[in-house]
Amino acid sequence: MGQGKGLKNRGNKRGDVAERLAAVSEETGTEYRAIADYGFDPELASKNIENMIGVTQVPLGFAGPVTINGEHAKGSFLVPLATTEGALVASVSRGMSVATAAGGITARVLSDAMTRGPVFRVDGIEHGIRAVAWIEGNMAKLKDVAGATTNHGRLLGIRPFLNGRNLFLRMSYHTADAMGMNMATIASEAVCAAIAEGTGATLVSVSGNVCTDKKPAAINSILGRGKTVVAEAFIPKGLAEARLRASPSAIAETAMRKNLVGSAMAGSLGFNAHAANMVAALYIATGQDPAQVVEASSCFTTCESDGDGLYIAVRMPSVEVGTVGGGTRLPTQSEALDMIGCKGAGKAGKLAEIVAATVLAGELSTLAAQAAGHLGKAHGELGR
Amino acid sequence: MGQGKGLKNRGNKRGDVAERLAAVSEETGTEYRAIADYGFDPELASKNIENMIGVTQVPLGFAGPVTINGEHAKGSFLVPLATTEGALVASVSRGMSVATAAGGITARVLSDAMTRGPVFRVDGIEHGIRAVAWIEGNMAKLKDVAGATTNHGRLLGIRPFLNGRNLFLRMSYHTADAMGMNMATIASEAVCAAIAEGTGATLVSVSGNVCTDKKPAAINSILGRGKTVVAEAFIPKGLAEARLRASPSAIAETAMRKNLVGSAMAGSLGFNAHAANMVAALYIATGQDPAQVVEASSCFTTCESDGDGLYIAVRMPSVEVGTVGGGTRLPTQSEALDMIGCKGAGKAGKLAEIVAATVLAGELSTLAAQAAGHLGKAHGELGR
Amino acid sequence: MGQGKGLKNRGNKRGDVAERLAAVSEETGTEYRAIADYGFDPELASKNIENMIGVTQVPLGFAGPVTINGEHAKGSFLVPLATTEGALVASVSRGMSVATAAGGITARVLSDAMTRGPVFRVDGIEHGIRAVAWIEGNMAKLKDVAGATTNHGRLLGIRPFLNGRNLFLRMSYHTADAMGMNMATIASEAVCAAIAEGTGATLVSVSGNVCTDKKPAAINSILGRGKTVVAEAFIPKGLAEARLRASPSAIAETAMRKNLVGSAMAGSLGFNAHAANMVAALYIATGQDPAQVVEASSCFTTCESDGDGLYIAVRMPSVEVGTVGGGTRLPTQSEALDMIGCKGAGKAGKLAEIVAATVLAGELSTLAAQAAGHLGKAHGELGR
Amino acid sequence: MGQGKGLKNRGNKRGDVAERLAAVSEETGTEYRAIADYGFDPELASKNIENMIGVTQVPLGFAGPVTINGEHAKGSFLVPLATTEGALVASVSRGMSVATAAGGITARVLSDAMTRGPVFRVDGIEHGIRAVAWIEGNMAKLKDVAGATTNHGRLLGIRPFLNGRNLFLRMSYHTADAMGMNMATIASEAVCAAIAEGTGATLVSVSGNVCTDKKPAAINSILGRGKTVVAEAFIPKGLAEARLRASPSAIAETAMRKNLVGSAMAGSLGFNAHAANMVAALYIATGQDPAQVVEASSCFTTCESDGDGLYIAVRMPSVEVGTVGGGTRLPTQSEALDMIGCKGAGKAGKLAEIVAATVLAGELSTLAAQAAGHLGKAHGELGR
Repeated sequence: MGQGKGLKNRGNKRGDVAERLAAVSEETGTEYRAIADYGFDPELASKNIENMIGVTQVPLGFAGPVTINGEHAKGSFLVPLATTEGALVASVSRGMSVATAAGGITARVLSDAMTRGPVFRVDGIEHGIRAVAWIEGNMAKLKDVAGATTNHGRLLGIRPFLNGRNLFLRMSYHTADAMGMNMATIASEAVCAAIAEGTGATLVSVSGNVCTDKKPAAINSILGRGKTVVAEAFIPKGLAEARLRASPSAIAETAMRKNLVGSAMAGSLGFNAHAANMVAALYIATGQDPAQVVEASSCFTTCESDGDGLYIAVRMPSVEVGTVGGGTRLPTQSEALDMIGCKGAGKAGKLAEIVAATVLAGELSTLAAQAAGHLGKAHGELGR
Repeated sequence: MGQGKGLKNRGNKRGDVAERLAAVSEETGTEYRAIADYGFDPELASKNIENMIGVTQVPLGFAGPVTINGEHAKGSFLVPLATTEGALVASVSRGMSVATAAGGITARVLSDAMTRGPVFRVDGIEHGIRAVAWIEGNMAKLKDVAGATTNHGRLLGIRPFLNGRNLFLRMSYHTADAMGMNMATIASEAVCAAIAEGTGATLVSVSGNVCTDKKPAAINSILGRGKTVVAEAFIPKGLAEARLRASPSAIAETAMRKNLVGSAMAGSLGFNAHAANMVAALYIATGQDPAQVVEASSCFTTCESDGDGLYIAVRMPSVEVGTVGGGTRLPTQSEALDMIGCKGAGKAGKLAEIVAATVLAGELSTLAAQAAGHLGKAHGELGR
Repeated sequence: MGQGKGLKNRGNKRGDVAERLAAVSEETGTEYRAIADYGFDPELASKNIENMIGVTQVPLGFAGPVTINGEHAKGSFLVPLATTEGALVASVSRGMSVATAAGGITARVLSDAMTRGPVFRVDGIEHGIRAVAWIEGNMAKLKDVAGATTNHGRLLGIRPFLNGRNLFLRMSYHTADAMGMNMATIASEAVCAAIAEGTGATLVSVSGNVCTDKKPAAINSILGRGKTVVAEAFIPKGLAEARLRASPSAIAETAMRKNLVGSAMAGSLGFNAHAANMVAALYIATGQDPAQVVEASSCFTTCESDGDGLYIAVRMPSVEVGTVGGGTRLPTQSEALDMIGCKGAGKAGKLAEIVAATVLAGELSTLAAQAAGHLGKAHGELGR
Repeated sequence: MGQGKGLKNRGNKRGDVAERLAAVSEETGTEYRAIADYGFDPELASKNIENMIGVTQVPLGFAGPVTINGEHAKGSFLVPLATTEGALVASVSRGMSVATAAGGITARVLSDAMTRGPVFRVDGIEHGIRAVAWIEGNMAKLKDVAGATTNHGRLLGIRPFLNGRNLFLRMSYHTADAMGMNMATIASEAVCAAIAEGTGATLVSVSGNVCTDKKPAAINSILGRGKTVVAEAFIPKGLAEARLRASPSAIAETAMRKNLVGSAMAGSLGFNAHAANMVAALYIATGQDPAQVVEASSCFTTCESDGDGLYIAVRMPSVEVGTVGGGTRLPTQSEALDMIGCKGAGKAGKLAEIVAATVLAGELSTLAAQAAGHLGKAHGELGR
């Protein structure tokens, strides 16, 4: 394959993009038109991508309105969802409509910290223990080191895991309204350099996978990563039957057999119906990192039926979102953030609560749809 | 919130989309321009989204060229990646360049089956055992039932898991070049109806989470879901040192401490550096389901150093891709598939091999970058 | 430490044991009497231990009688339990008494195969694929190779997992009434030698941890190891309230919150209350391998309440027991097997059903005890 | 089955035991002699078992001597192991002999806390958040409440996990030299009562499975339970080759492919060869709770080869041992503790280090034995 000059063009202007796309066209023997039809100055995306040749256009819809009773998100929202999965937006909207009719969805952020977990090589146990002691004794200094790399971030703490010659250090950061992975990485690099110098340990990788970024991991479910968010709604029995065509007891039974027993038998870390669907659509729409759908999918959805109706809740231990930086600067993504009042500083907690509420609505709708089939008929016959 | 008529518009024409967006605008008090700037007839997306108001434009770049020595993917490829994460495309390209200079990336599809895992309620153990026996005795009939729902799909088998009153049935399907989730769901609904009738078991949910779709799960890592794909490359020592600035031994050590020990300590199901990044970017670009990044992130990346160089490999047990249906029909997505010669029938295996090769390239580049830091210096001093 | 001659004595007679204990006594400066008080000819234990110096005496009690309606275990049983945990035997007995009053515990063995999972080193993907093809093409021969090493065992199949240069082969065996680990290992060594010769792959370890022996592992929960056993009981409401002082709904709620939600949040592979307690006590009493309590602890205990009472069930995917070989030959262990009619050939399935029934009884009792506290009061006030 | 009077005898004297055994004999139609041959006053075991009919005699051997360089365990030890698995004691002894020749095994306790994790039912998120705030605001009081139940224990902290209507509280305790499960349970019951009263939350179970006791769970691997212990040894190359007949590189390769890659592929929480074997034998010998072998099996064993030899280490996040209380009071168990100088107060840390050192020795021996086969030959030919 003879690489045309265009393939090596590193520019960020419209002309550069066009030249690259032409080179790709020549190289692959196909013409591209849709890709070339983008609506913004490519220099805007220069921190988001290299070798840009155009855009992918993902259909964008909205779900809602939904009433959210959060600490940060309060009121009625139309939630932007970018997806190519037919019925997803409609299903989420149905869940939102029912939850809103029932008084809305309550949501709260329980904790908030981005993590980076470097791994060092040490000589062995004694060296590792000394290194941990040094870190604990120099925490104030290490916080200064971290602080010097960022205007918004703050090192909160370091949790050590010594395993033979491997010393893992899970570092937690406050990252304000950025998702914070870059901030945490840059700060961690500085902190790691100080630790290496102070302890003689050799840094192997600034990410030693106890972070854990973009891999499913129990450590995130247990300790949290990004924002740990919970949401809940209570659907009166009559409303569930009228609008979801399923009884609370049938929905709760479905959730128990599927989300709890089924996931347990599958050796899963995700105890939900399809949280990843809602997360992916909302993340893509608002310029979040879609690879972090992985962690967000470790969501727990529980349902309970009492005599009066259905209680449904989600616990999402790892919602990694930001309202500044990353993909949030791009025009369509920025507008989507605007649609939910989440653009810019001071909005990340609000966005996280909207994520959880949207997931809850999607879970409610899907669980009810499944419960409305054969099982629903069985519950109906028993008058449950 | 007074809902304007536009919010309830269910149409799929440009005018409908515009009316909805205007209603959203009115509702939220903000004007939207970028979102409205889409380049295709919205009726094309009528099976992909509801309540469409425009598009999200995700920057699209390319990585490569990369030489892939697959069974299905053979030759040199420019790989489309849609992302907002700066440095990702450049990093993957670097890995591809080095791997290509080393002779390319070998890839193979080891197995291929989409699954759906319904859960039934049975009376108890004896009923469950009888039901399983009935299923085994009526497999030919059930295959016919499944076959009647689809032109391309085929029921391959059913694996039962009985747990008290829960009977889970993991159904495996050949789904040709579709990702196959819809096909498998529709077929499974028919099969479930036949099973319910034949056995008296009550269907609770056509998806009982032993499928497992869009949740991280060991069952997928062990039994596979979609395509199980492997890829490998061998990077001679001189090439690694010259182009990656890291020795094979330093890269292998990084992979061991991070991907294996670190992930083990995190209670993770993903033993890799950042497979989800490459998967998300390629899935979005080519119209795959981005929520299935979750399963794809359960990737194993192993590195070994011998005297001559670095052996690097990925095993991806759950690559769920299609080249027909879903988001692949949309204009930008379709062009991206064209770019790698993966549009239409007969191409899903090829796409899966390209996914694995792209992941390998990204893993190589990131592991090498980490190994080139402090650790690299340490290896350098020891002459390893 | 000057090692006395006695410490190096390798004999198996009473005098040898005494000499060793005397040497230990001298070495450690302490006299040992209780240890020396054993009741059998130590030559009997020559295949069970080296450096024997005496015995550990573990208190032995019985639980029951319990009525078991198994395929293999039918009738009323007094179950021997060796433990030092106060209240365990009493608690299991209580559960058995209630279950028996309710008609007994149903139990079934669903599948039965011991596994060994060697790992080979291969040159890479193509070599690995060729090796797998060779194995599939020579399965009859490999079964003969396995068969030549054993009178009772039979190779059932081989499931391959290729990961870069690692080729894992999970080999399944019928092992009759032996637990079968030794039989499977010896047969696997022969099979591995044939595979190495036929394929050029290098055996790294006859156990590559995909077996998985004595480590908690999802692969065992999903594919089974040893015997997969299920058991169930139905406790009428009045009986539960009178004898367990807890309502079916309170017990079911406890099981749901603790066994399902709690274990899910803990990142656990065991969804039960304390299955390991019953397993350990019964395994020690009957000469099973107590390290295999690990796998047995991956038990699923589910409870459901309907209007009439409590349905409780256990699914144990990995009950590894034998009634011949290993510790079953020793006098006290042999007598304990006698107590439940499980001594010798043709009894392993029966023992497995007794294990599951005993676990169920212990689960019932503990869950009920917890449900009888605060929660029970709450249910009582609501009349549930 | 007509139950004889003896079966209902609840006494703890020799005569009572005899009467019960006679009744069992009559009931089952078999005579028992070995079981009846026990060497201690059964009243001694009255807190350890109910319905005592005799004992199980488990063969007891010793491994060692082994040199341990611990913080608590220093010097040379003969380690008592109760097992029926032939070759285990010999194998551990071999590992100890080699490690001792190499200078001994270093061991350290990194942290120490027993946990109990109750689950409460709350009304929903807001109630749950208020309850957590109340707990944080009343921690001093709750510590007093806990302290009033025990002379030796101390509540260290409470980690909350709110999930819908489930509020899990993982309570950590200092339990001195007792394993501490009973102490933690009793204290937790009192603390739970105070929390229920102060917050209006309803206690569902004092153990909500986030403890996690006797189930494999990532939460224990990550946060620790009981004692988190590490151990290491360095075996010079010549010694490994002479005494283990395997090169350090072959052993390290075996450990990597089996303990890391193999366990990863099996979805395991135990990344070791057979830690459970050593733990079970030592726990039974010394009167520990054999069901807690489950948690101890979540051990990480890593090996590294440099030019000079083999570095081997274990990390055991969850060693739950005591030197007072429980089974340690019984005669044979007490003598076994004496053998390693671990009887009574002030010895639990020492015992934990001996556990880790013994596990390391067994791991070394087994990994070396596997590496000495085919793989060893391959390494030999390459002169590695």
